[in-house]
Amino acid sequence: MTIDQGRGNRSMTDTVSTHDTVTALMGQIAGIGQDPLRGGYSRPVFSTSEIDLREWFIAQAQRRGLDVHTDRNGVIWAWWDVPGASRFNAVVTGSHLDSVPGGGPFDGPLGVASALVAVDLLKAQGVVPQRPLAIAVFPEEEGSRFGRPCLGSLLMTGSIDPDTVRNLRDQEGNTFADVAAAHGVDPRFVGRDEEALSLIGTFVELHVEQGRGLIDLDRPVAIGSSIVSHGRWRFSVHGQGNHAGTTLMADRKDPMVAAARIVVDIRETAKRQPQARATVGRLQPVPGGTNVIASRVDFWLDVRHPEDAVTAGLVETILHHAQQVAAEEGCRVELHEESLSPTVHFDKPLEHQLRRWLPEAPVLDTGAGHDAGVLAASVPTAMLFVRNPSGISHSPEEHVEDADAEIGAAALAKVMGELSVQTP
Amino acid sequence: MTIDQGRGNRSMTDTVSTHDTVTALMGQIAGIGQDPLRGGYSRPVFSTSEIDLREWFIAQAQRRGLDVHTDRNGVIWAWWDVPGASRFNAVVTGSHLDSVPGGGPFDGPLGVASALVAVDLLKAQGVVPQRPLAIAVFPEEEGSRFGRPCLGSLLMTGSIDPDTVRNLRDQEGNTFADVAAAHGVDPRFVGRDEEALSLIGTFVELHVEQGRGLIDLDRPVAIGSSIVSHGRWRFSVHGQGNHAGTTLMADRKDPMVAAARIVVDIRETAKRQPQARATVGRLQPVPGGTNVIASRVDFWLDVRHPEDAVTAGLVETILHHAQQVAAEEGCRVELHEESLSPTVHFDKPLEHQLRRWLPEAPVLDTGAGHDAGVLAASVPTAMLFVRNPSGISHSPEEHVEDADAEIGAAALAKVMGELSVQTP
Repeated sequence: MTIDQGRGNRSMTDTVSTHDTVTALMGQIAGIGQDPLRGGYSRPVFSTSEIDLREWFIAQAQRRGLDVHTDRNGVIWAWWDVPGASRFNAVVTGSHLDSVPGGGPFDGPLGVASALVAVDLLKAQGVVPQRPLAIAVFPEEEGSRFGRPCLGSLLMTGSIDPDTVRNLRDQEGNTFADVAAAHGVDPRFVGRDEEALSLIGTFVELHVEQGRGLIDLDRPVAIGSSIVSHGRWRFSVHGQGNHAGTTLMADRKDPMVAAARIVVDIRETAKRQPQARATVGRLQPVPGGTNVIASRVDFWLDVRHPEDAVTAGLVETILHHAQQVAAEEGCRVELHEESLSPTVHFDKPLEHQLRRWLPEAPVLDTGAGHDAGVLAASVPTAMLFVRNPSGISHSPEEHVEDADAEIGAAALAKVMGELSVQTP
Repeated sequence: MTIDQGRGNRSMTDTVSTHDTVTALMGQIAGIGQDPLRGGYSRPVFSTSEIDLREWFIAQAQRRGLDVHTDRNGVIWAWWDVPGASRFNAVVTGSHLDSVPGGGPFDGPLGVASALVAVDLLKAQGVVPQRPLAIAVFPEEEGSRFGRPCLGSLLMTGSIDPDTVRNLRDQEGNTFADVAAAHGVDPRFVGRDEEALSLIGTFVELHVEQGRGLIDLDRPVAIGSSIVSHGRWRFSVHGQGNHAGTTLMADRKDPMVAAARIVVDIRETAKRQPQARATVGRLQPVPGGTNVIASRVDFWLDVRHPEDAVTAGLVETILHHAQQVAAEEGCRVELHEESLSPTVHFDKPLEHQLRRWLPEAPVLDTGAGHDAGVLAASVPTAMLFVRNPSGISHSPEEHVEDADAEIGAAALAKVMGELSVQTP
């Protein structure tokens, strides 16, 4: 095992005598990045609060004797090496520390804290890994600063053009390149990281569940089977800008009314299709004046379904209805696909192993995107979900009971431990 | 007559030998404040473009031998004095030079250019005024920078608290006080201007029509009878923020869907009430993420009707329906009245005089607010409207035919000339 020589280093025996609980670790970061305006937490990537969380993780990993470094895509790695062996075929777990605006405390950090506790548990159990173990913390999983979710894993796997990423801008107009450089990530070197990918033998991400699956099944932990197909489309409804006070109702071509009718129709269309989810969470009228009939309304549609063909069919139906509505309102509609991810099925042999090791855990799919979904195309990948008794996510009301958090970390430790003693 | 001694001064006989057309004057400012993004013009108060327009007006007024000064509320005055007499019982015309974002060229500037041409015409006709004449240019008529329409006339008449105005902020966070001070208006001295008000005997504003009244009647110029009751209300629809991918359609309390249903209902409610206009031109979801079901949606409602009681009844009906819709969607709705102006009837004896002098002009009300509507509470006030063949306003498509513009200026000159030779 590599023992870190930095500040705060202790011998391993000190740190594993008693282990932290997930709840205790989460408590250490409860004050970081609170959002007084929206409630909950706003921790965009490379903000002061996300940097504070990164430093907290590095200190915690070093306290456990893990060897920490940050790679060229801004992913933090904390290694528990096999003495005398090179890093290869590693068992890697991890998640993210950034949040959506006004998000909950668990989305991301729960997976990171559980990974630290899993290391403690394995050490307390005297597990001697035959494969190296590592915790990875990915930047910009939410896409809430630069607009592209899973940016760290997309870069690492070469699934996104580095030039595109360098030129992404946040709401203040800062480029990813400038912001990354200011935080020690040289933007010239972001992109596919063959070395990092070649070291990962298995990737397992633990995450708070973002729906009601475990509530309905009355279980604390689930194994992930897949991430359902999801995409983002931008609609532009073009109408006729005019004066709000002088234009008779009969003379209007109001794109806001057309957009409103389309938003209602989207919900009705999605309700008719079992398992479909369709959401409009962002809408911008142009010019957006109180006393001005808008000339254009842009809105963004998020659609998800386990079957790629159904997702495509839903968007087609929605567009067809939107065109009818727009025509009735004297408007016209344009559609632009911003992203589309087909359904990702996690590694089946790995899923079967997890079912053997966690016989009480149900198997659930998820409608939420994750770095695990991106990595699944490159390495055998699995996910664990921990029950969220509110069923609510991307909101301050997201929650995890203390007992469930510890059960989740124990399940992760079980999986990591079993995987770590496998020999190829 | 006061002859200005400044740069560009000429003797009066030079300048009135031939007069400018309205079209020629409008052509001089056609290049100022064009908005390449929205189309049309964006000329917010105290922006470079609005300042350029003010300087153009001052130069044009001085060229005509008018005595120009800017008062403590930022209103520019250009005086044609009665020789040997003090300024009292003046015939004042004027309008504004600022615009909404992406507005047309005529809303405001047409009244200013027509006033200059009216002065030329009166001089060419050899009119010898018995009452002083003046042109007034009001700042921030549109409220597009500091959010409060008719700010200059509200300040002059003492209809708004100067402290409130000093603390108004533009979108960049600059206070009115700081911006005004940077442009020579000392914010300590804004507010009711007894002296200016005491000089105005009659106020007449010429404005491009912002609806289809003159198109339907096939006439170039109308006399204004009233500005219909109008107000602004902010709705907040509170729902349950959640993850767009994981929350089943049946489990949602989506304020965007509720807001969309309310927007559609507002249109239907307004359509059922003859002469009513109700508009939602501004809407903001919170947090506004593509993959987040909003927790709250704010939108702004603009309602207008000739009868105050009908306006109030419409808003009541809309709120009642909104509460029902919100309840059905598991949301709740809050209403905040931002402003409410009762119907303003212009001075009846003055209207009768205008009908005598312009026998072909129909009499129309308007749904648009104007500085004339604010001044009407303090001084006898009238309005003239010039036909807009597009019927479209607050948009680049607003238009005035050259011939109609000249007919409008001639009508204004007729009214000004008749008023100027009246003795009290």
